[in-house]
Amino acid sequence: MKVYNFSAGPSMLYDEVKAEAQKDFFDYAGSGMSVTEMSHRSKPYEAINAEANALFRELMHIDDTYEVLFVQGGASQQFEAIPLNLLKAQGSKADYLVTGNFASKAASEAKKYADVYVAASSKDKNYTYIPKTYTFRDDADYAHFTYNNTIFGTRFNAVPQANIPLVTDISSNILSEEIDVNKFTLLYAGAQKNIGPSGLTVVIVKKDAIGKHLPICPTMLSYQIQADNQSLYNTPPCFAVYMAMLTLRHVKKLGGVKAVEAHNIAKAGLLYDFIDNSALYTNKVAKEDRSRMNVPFVTGNEELDDKFVKEAAKAGLVSIKGHRLAGGMRASIYNAMPVEGIKTLIEFMKKFEIENK
Amino acid sequence: MKVYNFSAGPSMLYDEVKAEAQKDFFDYAGSGMSVTEMSHRSKPYEAINAEANALFRELMHIDDTYEVLFVQGGASQQFEAIPLNLLKAQGSKADYLVTGNFASKAASEAKKYADVYVAASSKDKNYTYIPKTYTFRDDADYAHFTYNNTIFGTRFNAVPQANIPLVTDISSNILSEEIDVNKFTLLYAGAQKNIGPSGLTVVIVKKDAIGKHLPICPTMLSYQIQADNQSLYNTPPCFAVYMAMLTLRHVKKLGGVKAVEAHNIAKAGLLYDFIDNSALYTNKVAKEDRSRMNVPFVTGNEELDDKFVKEAAKAGLVSIKGHRLAGGMRASIYNAMPVEGIKTLIEFMKKFEIENK
Repeated sequence: MKVYNFSAGPSMLYDEVKAEAQKDFFDYAGSGMSVTEMSHRSKPYEAINAEANALFRELMHIDDTYEVLFVQGGASQQFEAIPLNLLKAQGSKADYLVTGNFASKAASEAKKYADVYVAASSKDKNYTYIPKTYTFRDDADYAHFTYNNTIFGTRFNAVPQANIPLVTDISSNILSEEIDVNKFTLLYAGAQKNIGPSGLTVVIVKKDAIGKHLPICPTMLSYQIQADNQSLYNTPPCFAVYMAMLTLRHVKKLGGVKAVEAHNIAKAGLLYDFIDNSALYTNKVAKEDRSRMNVPFVTGNEELDDKFVKEAAKAGLVSIKGHRLAGGMRASIYNAMPVEGIKTLIEFMKKFEIENK
Repeated sequence: MKVYNFSAGPSMLYDEVKAEAQKDFFDYAGSGMSVTEMSHRSKPYEAINAEANALFRELMHIDDTYEVLFVQGGASQQFEAIPLNLLKAQGSKADYLVTGNFASKAASEAKKYADVYVAASSKDKNYTYIPKTYTFRDDADYAHFTYNNTIFGTRFNAVPQANIPLVTDISSNILSEEIDVNKFTLLYAGAQKNIGPSGLTVVIVKKDAIGKHLPICPTMLSYQIQADNQSLYNTPPCFAVYMAMLTLRHVKKLGGVKAVEAHNIAKAGLLYDFIDNSALYTNKVAKEDRSRMNVPFVTGNEELDDKFVKEAAKAGLVSIKGHRLAGGMRASIYNAMPVEGIKTLIEFMKKFEIENK
């Protein structure tokens, strides 16, 4: 059965990318080996590592003042790596905007090492909007925010104003929209939404911001160590980096991030328009703060929501159940979700609405 | 060209495992999805996670007093996770046997958090033997050793005597020989030698030894957190866990670890016998301490070694160059290296010896 996978991550990969990985699974580039079994010190893998890095730089317009690092452990591990690397001293100040579950976790984890100040939070309305007024402490070492909130379906439609180094989690919007990297000291993303399979985390960090990690920082979490070793300090997640490279090639072929962004705006627009004009479905997020990647919606009746999720799965629209913190449904529509997937979902929603009047 | 991959890791996977992963790459178990894009909260992935865990328990005879955890970051990350989780307090005592490069790194990293004592080292003879006499401190929180030394080709032929909790790195011998897990408080292994692709690390730890990590321990490095969440605290390296499951199924089909061990003894025996009877090649390791997984050898002439490596690669015997710390050549012959690979190597070595008399 043709399936559209609305999972929040890991999530759909481009068919072209999967096809190439499958084709070359036994014998990559005439090496006689699968990338899953190839030494990370071999020439073919070093070429993969270098090309993936170069493509990130090209597609995201990242200049030489930044490192692009491939690490492990997911964004969650970065919640701790960030203070361990960027704080001037243990107990120094770090400011956070708390706009969802992962933003909240990032702030909580940092408390282990930092004097954390929550400059703003949207918890009062179950994270259905992005706070617009806040002030960061001038003497904080950095300010952190989550660019797109996967669970609650919100997105910063403008980069926060800050006089201190800005750090952002772009796990769920990397490569989906143009981001001005130069506004940031550090950007990071788990791969499993818009880049490739899980197990890879990308960290883009200003070279002059690293090299001074806290003495208690584990070596494996040190950005400088990873930078000094071109992300090959120890064995990297080779197959995930390889599939990321294939995805990046494909994004380039599609016209780059700008072209993909236009496509994403159109895709999300179709779905929001349908929801806004529907009598049954509601999206609770403030309109100006809506995510283009994660579209939560409810029927207003929990039993009906459950029925929706079950019947949708039977119709091939899978992993559409909302996160337990938000309830209802959530359609995650990352780069690789084709417009046909959105249209099929809308047709299903129409049918379900008629059948459940 | 048919290639035999003698890489120290990532290294050869079973053809049967790769074939199944390739076949199901687009559509795993009728889900309509690739494992590379499947939610880690989905039923098919939860089944993979559970089966991989159960197969480790079955094949390694691990009882319910142990946790089997799937984490990220490689063995190197465990060098720090171990003291962060097992030390009774920051600055407590931990003892190490230093029998190679990674054993040495494990001890160095622990110094960040522990009072480290090197109970024995074989550095005096460039790690070509395993020390036999040493005493651990009675009040140390644990003693650590590296069961098989990948770079130098040594192996503990008996588990060290200890009155304190024993911790061991089994990255390069897990699943290759029967290990009595009950002698240990903790065993850990990077997957990329005998288990599957890189990006996955397995930690087997006594339940009663965890839950008391140091306050500075990053959450992602806490064993208790991973145990409480069945290794699903955040997104795991799904595809690597899946391929590990396929490998474990295959090892079971081959008759389990005992059968695989017999095969490995025979394989290593062929190669050591040939080297010992050769006029050109030498293995410098004390005979009783020889690894069954990693067989370093030299010609005694560096130029000739280089020539060997180059010509071997042309003949399809790849990644056979020794680590720079050991020099010469190294044939890593993990579980998935077939006996035909050893025979082909020996034929090549014979021919090379004749041609270079």
